[in-house]
Amino acid sequence: MRIGLITGGGDCPGLNAAIRAVVKHGHGTYGHSIIGFRNGWKGVIEGDVQPLTREHIRNVLPVGGTMLGTARMHPHRVDGGLDAVRATLEAERVDALVVIGGDGTLDAASKVAETGINVIGIPKTIDNDVVRTDTAIGFETAVQVATEAVDRIHTTAESHNRVMVVEVMGRSTGWIAVNAAIAGGAELVLAPEAPFDMDRVERFLRHRHRAHASFSIIVVAEGAVPAAGSSMDYTTELGQFGEIVSGAVSSAVAHEIAERTGFDTRVTVLGHVQRGGTPLPADRILGSRFGVAAVEALQAGRSDVMTALHGESVDLVPISEIAGQVKQVPEELLRVAGALA
Amino acid sequence: MRIGLITGGGDCPGLNAAIRAVVKHGHGTYGHSIIGFRNGWKGVIEGDVQPLTREHIRNVLPVGGTMLGTARMHPHRVDGGLDAVRATLEAERVDALVVIGGDGTLDAASKVAETGINVIGIPKTIDNDVVRTDTAIGFETAVQVATEAVDRIHTTAESHNRVMVVEVMGRSTGWIAVNAAIAGGAELVLAPEAPFDMDRVERFLRHRHRAHASFSIIVVAEGAVPAAGSSMDYTTELGQFGEIVSGAVSSAVAHEIAERTGFDTRVTVLGHVQRGGTPLPADRILGSRFGVAAVEALQAGRSDVMTALHGESVDLVPISEIAGQVKQVPEELLRVAGALA
Amino acid sequence: MRIGLITGGGDCPGLNAAIRAVVKHGHGTYGHSIIGFRNGWKGVIEGDVQPLTREHIRNVLPVGGTMLGTARMHPHRVDGGLDAVRATLEAERVDALVVIGGDGTLDAASKVAETGINVIGIPKTIDNDVVRTDTAIGFETAVQVATEAVDRIHTTAESHNRVMVVEVMGRSTGWIAVNAAIAGGAELVLAPEAPFDMDRVERFLRHRHRAHASFSIIVVAEGAVPAAGSSMDYTTELGQFGEIVSGAVSSAVAHEIAERTGFDTRVTVLGHVQRGGTPLPADRILGSRFGVAAVEALQAGRSDVMTALHGESVDLVPISEIAGQVKQVPEELLRVAGALA
Amino acid sequence: MRIGLITGGGDCPGLNAAIRAVVKHGHGTYGHSIIGFRNGWKGVIEGDVQPLTREHIRNVLPVGGTMLGTARMHPHRVDGGLDAVRATLEAERVDALVVIGGDGTLDAASKVAETGINVIGIPKTIDNDVVRTDTAIGFETAVQVATEAVDRIHTTAESHNRVMVVEVMGRSTGWIAVNAAIAGGAELVLAPEAPFDMDRVERFLRHRHRAHASFSIIVVAEGAVPAAGSSMDYTTELGQFGEIVSGAVSSAVAHEIAERTGFDTRVTVLGHVQRGGTPLPADRILGSRFGVAAVEALQAGRSDVMTALHGESVDLVPISEIAGQVKQVPEELLRVAGALA
Repeated sequence: MRIGLITGGGDCPGLNAAIRAVVKHGHGTYGHSIIGFRNGWKGVIEGDVQPLTREHIRNVLPVGGTMLGTARMHPHRVDGGLDAVRATLEAERVDALVVIGGDGTLDAASKVAETGINVIGIPKTIDNDVVRTDTAIGFETAVQVATEAVDRIHTTAESHNRVMVVEVMGRSTGWIAVNAAIAGGAELVLAPEAPFDMDRVERFLRHRHRAHASFSIIVVAEGAVPAAGSSMDYTTELGQFGEIVSGAVSSAVAHEIAERTGFDTRVTVLGHVQRGGTPLPADRILGSRFGVAAVEALQAGRSDVMTALHGESVDLVPISEIAGQVKQVPEELLRVAGALA
Repeated sequence: MRIGLITGGGDCPGLNAAIRAVVKHGHGTYGHSIIGFRNGWKGVIEGDVQPLTREHIRNVLPVGGTMLGTARMHPHRVDGGLDAVRATLEAERVDALVVIGGDGTLDAASKVAETGINVIGIPKTIDNDVVRTDTAIGFETAVQVATEAVDRIHTTAESHNRVMVVEVMGRSTGWIAVNAAIAGGAELVLAPEAPFDMDRVERFLRHRHRAHASFSIIVVAEGAVPAAGSSMDYTTELGQFGEIVSGAVSSAVAHEIAERTGFDTRVTVLGHVQRGGTPLPADRILGSRFGVAAVEALQAGRSDVMTALHGESVDLVPISEIAGQVKQVPEELLRVAGALA
Repeated sequence: MRIGLITGGGDCPGLNAAIRAVVKHGHGTYGHSIIGFRNGWKGVIEGDVQPLTREHIRNVLPVGGTMLGTARMHPHRVDGGLDAVRATLEAERVDALVVIGGDGTLDAASKVAETGINVIGIPKTIDNDVVRTDTAIGFETAVQVATEAVDRIHTTAESHNRVMVVEVMGRSTGWIAVNAAIAGGAELVLAPEAPFDMDRVERFLRHRHRAHASFSIIVVAEGAVPAAGSSMDYTTELGQFGEIVSGAVSSAVAHEIAERTGFDTRVTVLGHVQRGGTPLPADRILGSRFGVAAVEALQAGRSDVMTALHGESVDLVPISEIAGQVKQVPEELLRVAGALA
Repeated sequence: MRIGLITGGGDCPGLNAAIRAVVKHGHGTYGHSIIGFRNGWKGVIEGDVQPLTREHIRNVLPVGGTMLGTARMHPHRVDGGLDAVRATLEAERVDALVVIGGDGTLDAASKVAETGINVIGIPKTIDNDVVRTDTAIGFETAVQVATEAVDRIHTTAESHNRVMVVEVMGRSTGWIAVNAAIAGGAELVLAPEAPFDMDRVERFLRHRHRAHASFSIIVVAEGAVPAAGSSMDYTTELGQFGEIVSGAVSSAVAHEIAERTGFDTRVTVLGHVQRGGTPLPADRILGSRFGVAAVEALQAGRSDVMTALHGESVDLVPISEIAGQVKQVPEELLRVAGALA
């Protein structure tokens, strides 16, 4: 078999573990040839190919990002995209595809599978918003980076008696925010799942600072929004942008807090550091297991399915079942964050 | 309600997160008083008590070990132990117990529950061998410590063209060994689940070093054993000890390799560093969720159950169902380790 | 003797090591009483005092920030400040002061020494801009945090073929920027010591991206400035602020690059994470050595001097010699950064 | 110019930074060709050569070990060794050598310089025992690894009320031991510089455990020795080996403590993890500066000198001045460790 491999969407730690596993298991165990397309679907469309042998994957396990490069282009949203994909796959005599990506990339994989080639998806997303799997490649490491930042900021908050607002990634869900808030012992977390009321934030901070503390840490997902009808005029402000802008909500929240309470308040926007760097063992292992499972799925003649973690086992799930859906933070986890504030 | 709290068995990262969660949720949300017994069941027997309020749990989230101390004593194996436990609980007017520990400690918890007091268990073990839960407090961090060691040793193995044997914890199971081997990209893993054959180890190393590499890393669980009838005379040697001795199997394996192949071979026994230090977010979060769930279970009048992680949710499992059982590394994970060697 | 202890200015990792050393050596070795003033000079002025015994300093070595709190107030710049300081010191019967801080705090220490009380300074600054000492408490850890961020961003830059601009602390000097750029292998570093020319930045990037690379990392100190007469109209823009605003220069630089080259360009402003968290051994050791040396200096009747590191030894330097001066990054280090781009 | 590069002796973090700097500065700035000899002097003797261009040094900064490999062979101690070296250098048309190593390797470099070729040395050693330089490549990272281990073991010691003995590297000096003990807050440190008296160790532990603590951490350098005439019969035991054996002294010390005091006592021997893994910024920067300085020294026609760090500057020191000498831990640092116990 000749297997093509691509990574699409935003980069994250653990992608190289999955690439390595497909090469080691696909080539080493079964003798298949593996080729990589550079920069996601862009490389498939443009026929930008590189061989992937044992030599290429040496020492990549602890390296973040993706050795194949990535891009945010989807073939079914580009004129003639799917035709170009088909042409390249034929020219390169590719029998099957392994596609590593988030929901957008996997959606595209499903479209390509319809053209008749076997395609297996592997979910990756630091946002953890892909449904039908407990987690995806990259999420655990992103939580670790965000938690380390909260740990670091904790000592400054306490030393200077400040309110520190930390913005983490998460446009449609608060997975990183809620997990980093619990792990870092933050006082408050604002997530898209539970629109916030600035009056309640104010009351909470006043109560806390009157009662027993002189500092607070608030973790904010970049996609957090004020509750409809809440007294914060920031909704309109945000509305101006029309879309989520990194740093917008945390600046607005910090500004409101400082205005209302007079507390010394500062903002940190974590940004791109959440995507990069040495993957935690959890992400290296998940990538390795998913990579092996993808090769096994191809051996079994499967297509249009995604590898998924369920408890202790790795399963296959139809890609159609995840399309257009967003996995939100469950009630239980939100309650834990609330209870421990 | 007046809730007693103990931590038993070996210490590990994440225990303080669970203690903190019981105090914050039990006291903060429901107004219960929480007291801690020092040094596990020993403190219950001896009436060694300390109050646990908001003050005591400040800044404990990132701290490893247990602020309550721990010991490996079990009341039902001590003369008059259960009576002494009952007497202390009455004297301290304790209405319910939260017991954080491994299978031995939880087994004792079940015995105490029989005396009529409500007892909720929280599983912790770096060995990950408690059944009926995906994982337990402490395991993820232990894997991280072991993987970092494999990463570090990797560069030395490669620079010096050596075979490096790394012994990690795991007397009856190879959870840490297999996970650290996959995450660290080790060439071979020896786990109790799959008795090893020294002839095959030799063949593997000779083949590898002839083919394309001049170094190898072998991760060994301290409880790994040679296959019956395998040609290594070390079985008898190990038999002398009658029990597993830290460093014994890795030294024997390294000695055999050096003798048979002439390769420059070195041993590292990781030891106690695997138990300590700042918990990963995963263990802080698991401890926090289990602590909150234990309080909720007491609110609901439950007893003799253990908090458990199943996929994305936290459930309760009868302690009786876990007693005397050992969760082994599943086939799939062993296969991944083998495929990626 | 009764020794008062304060930490002033911005917090940083390693302060608790110095506090612990003064308590352990001052009290443990010589039997002096040690008291701490809370929140820097503010606590001295207001008489906000806490005892410091062996109990208080348990387990503080790995904890960032300062257990005493800190503030940016200087007594000689406050009406009646020095008088209030003198009154408190008399009321608390303080015989000598150990003052841990940056140049502002140490300058104040010198003023207080003039009132007749023995004062020893200990330099701390993540900016490393205190003269007459090789380094100060907090700097090494800040470089580590900044380097880790560059490492993380490296994988994203490479995966996405982007220009990534990373802003680190340093208003008047580029110590963190230059060190993190060398350690992280950045392509370019903009520091206050060497005003930058946007035309040269553009030429450098164009040449590099044409020749052999598709990504670049630029580390920018928050106090970096464009060369006079350089073609970037950002000087005026910055002029609007009148002072250095976090994020301003890196945004302007990124904007210019994107405009001129069309390269996909992103900004990360590290911010407060550079101040916090577990100190590296180097900062714990420096804090410990400086704390012991400060006590020894008081034993020897010294005053108005600062502990300083010179090569392998710890010396004392008159505070007057450091006042109003800024230690800049030496030529050699700037050349190394340039040579390795 | 055609520059040959070798790394000799034990591997350590930061070597690749130095290799990269020689290539980037030697080739990039001055246009010299750089070739590497594999596995230290062995590669020079055997003519085992590889080219070193920009391609080879991509992404090596954060990687531990040495990309050239290393070995502990010295040409002037091998029959015909120096002749073979000369022959290879001629055959490869090498005009100058940069030699990265500890005292043994640098001593050999000096012998090779006598044959007429220009040779610049760069000091590396995790033991920090090279004289005439503040520090050498690899030391800071080794201290970090050892300190992290002490941090981790701290929580176990405290949770279980144990005496934990941690053995770190250092055969003739206690640099790692003393620094990790100060940074990790160990109660006692045993270093070769100050032979220990087991009676005093016993008295110290009894006093401490009676007074206020129920646990202790003792950091032991592998080369620590009991004082002559001290009451420990271990001297003879050690004498049997004739040389220092990893783990010997810490086992003996732990055994004595357990025997004498009855305290629960455990040993951890850190071993090879101290040599490997991602270098701290300090070692990457030192390697980079030394690499650039070595190229500059060759440009200036220098030979038989070693790059050295003195305070904030990098200088050159005649190799003859370091031969056969061992830099010991200074009194001041030993006193700090003692004062803070």
